[in-house]
Amino acid sequence: MTIKNYNKLIEHYHSIDNFEHLNAICSWDQAAMMPSGGADSRAEAMAELAVHLHALHTAPQLAELFESVKNDELNESQQASVREMQRTWQMRTVLPADLVKAKSLAGAKCEHQWRTQRVENNWQGFIKNFEPVVKLSQEEAQIRASANNLTPYDAMLDIYEPGMSSGELDQLFKDISSWLPQLIQEAKQIPPPATHASYPVKQQELLAHELMTILGFNFDHGRLDTSVHPFCGGTSQDTRITTRYDEDEFINAMMGVIHETGHACYEQNLPTPLNKLPAGKARSMAIHESQSLFYEMQIARSPEFIALISEHAARHFPNYASINTTQKLQQDLQCVTPSLIRVDADEVTYPAHIILRYEIERDLINGKINCQDIPELWDNKMSTLLGLSTKDNYKNGCMQDIHWTDGSFGYFPSYTLGAMYAAQFKHAMSQSIDIATQINNRDLTPIYDWLNTHIWQKASLLPTNELVVKATGSSLNAQIFKEHLQQRYT
Amino acid sequence: MTIKNYNKLIEHYHSIDNFEHLNAICSWDQAAMMPSGGADSRAEAMAELAVHLHALHTAPQLAELFESVKNDELNESQQASVREMQRTWQMRTVLPADLVKAKSLAGAKCEHQWRTQRVENNWQGFIKNFEPVVKLSQEEAQIRASANNLTPYDAMLDIYEPGMSSGELDQLFKDISSWLPQLIQEAKQIPPPATHASYPVKQQELLAHELMTILGFNFDHGRLDTSVHPFCGGTSQDTRITTRYDEDEFINAMMGVIHETGHACYEQNLPTPLNKLPAGKARSMAIHESQSLFYEMQIARSPEFIALISEHAARHFPNYASINTTQKLQQDLQCVTPSLIRVDADEVTYPAHIILRYEIERDLINGKINCQDIPELWDNKMSTLLGLSTKDNYKNGCMQDIHWTDGSFGYFPSYTLGAMYAAQFKHAMSQSIDIATQINNRDLTPIYDWLNTHIWQKASLLPTNELVVKATGSSLNAQIFKEHLQQRYT
Repeated sequence: MTIKNYNKLIEHYHSIDNFEHLNAICSWDQAAMMPSGGADSRAEAMAELAVHLHALHTAPQLAELFESVKNDELNESQQASVREMQRTWQMRTVLPADLVKAKSLAGAKCEHQWRTQRVENNWQGFIKNFEPVVKLSQEEAQIRASANNLTPYDAMLDIYEPGMSSGELDQLFKDISSWLPQLIQEAKQIPPPATHASYPVKQQELLAHELMTILGFNFDHGRLDTSVHPFCGGTSQDTRITTRYDEDEFINAMMGVIHETGHACYEQNLPTPLNKLPAGKARSMAIHESQSLFYEMQIARSPEFIALISEHAARHFPNYASINTTQKLQQDLQCVTPSLIRVDADEVTYPAHIILRYEIERDLINGKINCQDIPELWDNKMSTLLGLSTKDNYKNGCMQDIHWTDGSFGYFPSYTLGAMYAAQFKHAMSQSIDIATQINNRDLTPIYDWLNTHIWQKASLLPTNELVVKATGSSLNAQIFKEHLQQRYT
Repeated sequence: MTIKNYNKLIEHYHSIDNFEHLNAICSWDQAAMMPSGGADSRAEAMAELAVHLHALHTAPQLAELFESVKNDELNESQQASVREMQRTWQMRTVLPADLVKAKSLAGAKCEHQWRTQRVENNWQGFIKNFEPVVKLSQEEAQIRASANNLTPYDAMLDIYEPGMSSGELDQLFKDISSWLPQLIQEAKQIPPPATHASYPVKQQELLAHELMTILGFNFDHGRLDTSVHPFCGGTSQDTRITTRYDEDEFINAMMGVIHETGHACYEQNLPTPLNKLPAGKARSMAIHESQSLFYEMQIARSPEFIALISEHAARHFPNYASINTTQKLQQDLQCVTPSLIRVDADEVTYPAHIILRYEIERDLINGKINCQDIPELWDNKMSTLLGLSTKDNYKNGCMQDIHWTDGSFGYFPSYTLGAMYAAQFKHAMSQSIDIATQINNRDLTPIYDWLNTHIWQKASLLPTNELVVKATGSSLNAQIFKEHLQQRYT
């Protein structure tokens, strides 16, 4: 009887996953394939699907089914399944529909007007739309906080990083803040002069396919295409990554491909028997980012992999060798330069951008500061961390990112958590694998095997901290990240 | 109150259309984009969607809503909407679920084994799986016949060609049979010798895009891609056609593109305000085919368009001019050669293949012959119509097509009906438009305008015969088709 109820849950979530599959493929199509005239009808179809998925995710019978399996003798994986189902169910059901709708409308308006207001450096105009978004996000945070017995900001953080708290983040980021500005000063370089050459898209695609193959991407279960904003989408059986090409240089597209390949390898290697259930999905946003950053930062920016790239690039681009060397490529890939824009930041200065945003959004959601306080705080923190000023420069300061405009508070920390996890995984892996030699020998298999065993196959079966402790022997530790940066950049 | 019910119907069918949209895009993706490893999970997701769509199409409240709007004062387009809704609803609800499932299983088995049995010329093995498919199709036909007061075969025909009857088909096809064998004898030619050259895919794609543009395809609302079996899919706002390329010759891919462009232009120009409702969809399979065949046979195989193709091909293929001439291309495109295989048949012999299949499937579904009778009937009719024998040659005789294996009886006639409608539309159009001169002047706009006014914008607002009478002044007339073939081939 009770196992019958457990099976009902499985069936329901398989059904959800099938509709999520359609959603993933049509979303990918929208970004990578759809002609512009298809936009309106696609938006309607996707909205209809979103309503249907919401109804499935919040189906009233789920509450009873969760209750009915509570005292069942479920094995570890079944328990994890139910735990993750309940988590997604609670996140979807806890908010009143009115609030979801109001936030969505306020967010859409704020985002839409931000596109022109940013160009115009128009903070006064922006704040009028942004304040309602913050107010509704505070309401959302308050409701989630009450339901989960958390502080408001921690309740938002929990959406992206279940189990993470601002208490822990404060400590980790305080640690980083204590040594990062000094490290940046030591690592700072004038960017190498730009060289001019032509890199045909066709050749860049060939290079990308070769590197993806070396990095373990399975083309029987995925594709590479182009889109305006690169992403990793699709499903774990059919993982679609995208990039965008610029014929004047090849590094951006290539590093984007390597980054998305990290996301894709995680997806492609989630445990097959569970891959239609919440417990079989990727653990969290930070763990997902840890895989893309492991590929991008820990593997691809290592001297050994840079040599490999150089060798492949020389085969694909005529005249490459005459204007590029491995040393030049290494300079390009390891140059540290403080700048105002997060998305252009290098590995060393990137955490400064995240810490700044974290501290502001935490206090904003907890009601300790107001929207009006943001520009001054931004300027002060920018000065302290990176030695740069954003005074009166809203467009390259607090108005530069799209994320806050629709009230997506709580996920900026994932980027730097991901970078820290990646360094810690590399450190643990190094105990048993000579990574540099493996790359030099063009055999990355032991590297994937380690990630597969410790991360990919674990999916959401364990809470994040347990996953990390089992994989590396300790909880997240900012010192390992510091050592990585020091070793590479000073 | 009643208009409220009419609006409920509209809302319900808009919702269906949104899910059909997802179905169309994911089906296209499956054929044109999906990596092989994505097949299993895609099949599951599509099956889930099919179940959901079936539930929407057969929702019990629809019966009440149809009843409730029966005496409403609806305008002409609203009446057509309700009529077409009821038609699709009745077609979906009339069969018991058991029968649908049994036929689907029997069909899948028959089709699957046909793939090897055909290669082995194994009629005895094939008939074991085929007999159950026919038996279940007869049951289906009987149920549909009782519900609609039709003969069994006419009830199957009605699925694809609403309003068409075997009485009318018998007359049309008897007419054709009376003059076709003689016309084939007169037109018969030895195929021109093959010429060898290389036609790079990239260049073939450029040629295809140019011809599609000339033929009115709107690339803001559609795409051209490649797939194993060429088709026209997607939606009317985002119409996706495919072809396949062979670098040894360019004609097959190009003519396939032109054919699918005809389908696509019909889809792209269906009336926008109605395009999410059954009344706003294409009229029938034969009318759809009439548009692809209008493009392929009436436009593209005309001497004027062949000259245009030759001009464009010479620009794209190096050495084209040295081995090809407009005259040679015309020979290739207008060669008449009786052959055993329908899909390879030319414009003149094609109707023979259809008449043969029609006569056999009509008698089979009406219970007048048995499956065992098919090979001999096939051989006899092949001899009479084309002067060829298929004795003991099952694989190139009655086992050559996939369509019957899953019980799709009733739609072969649509191909030749389409060819006849296309000829009749051309004939009517010629009364007001000098088509040859328009093509010579590279201005096809008046041609599309005529099709748009008389066919595309009419969607399913009128029954087929009324549509044809309004467009051409008379019901379908085999003599016009005869004149077209005579004029071109004798």
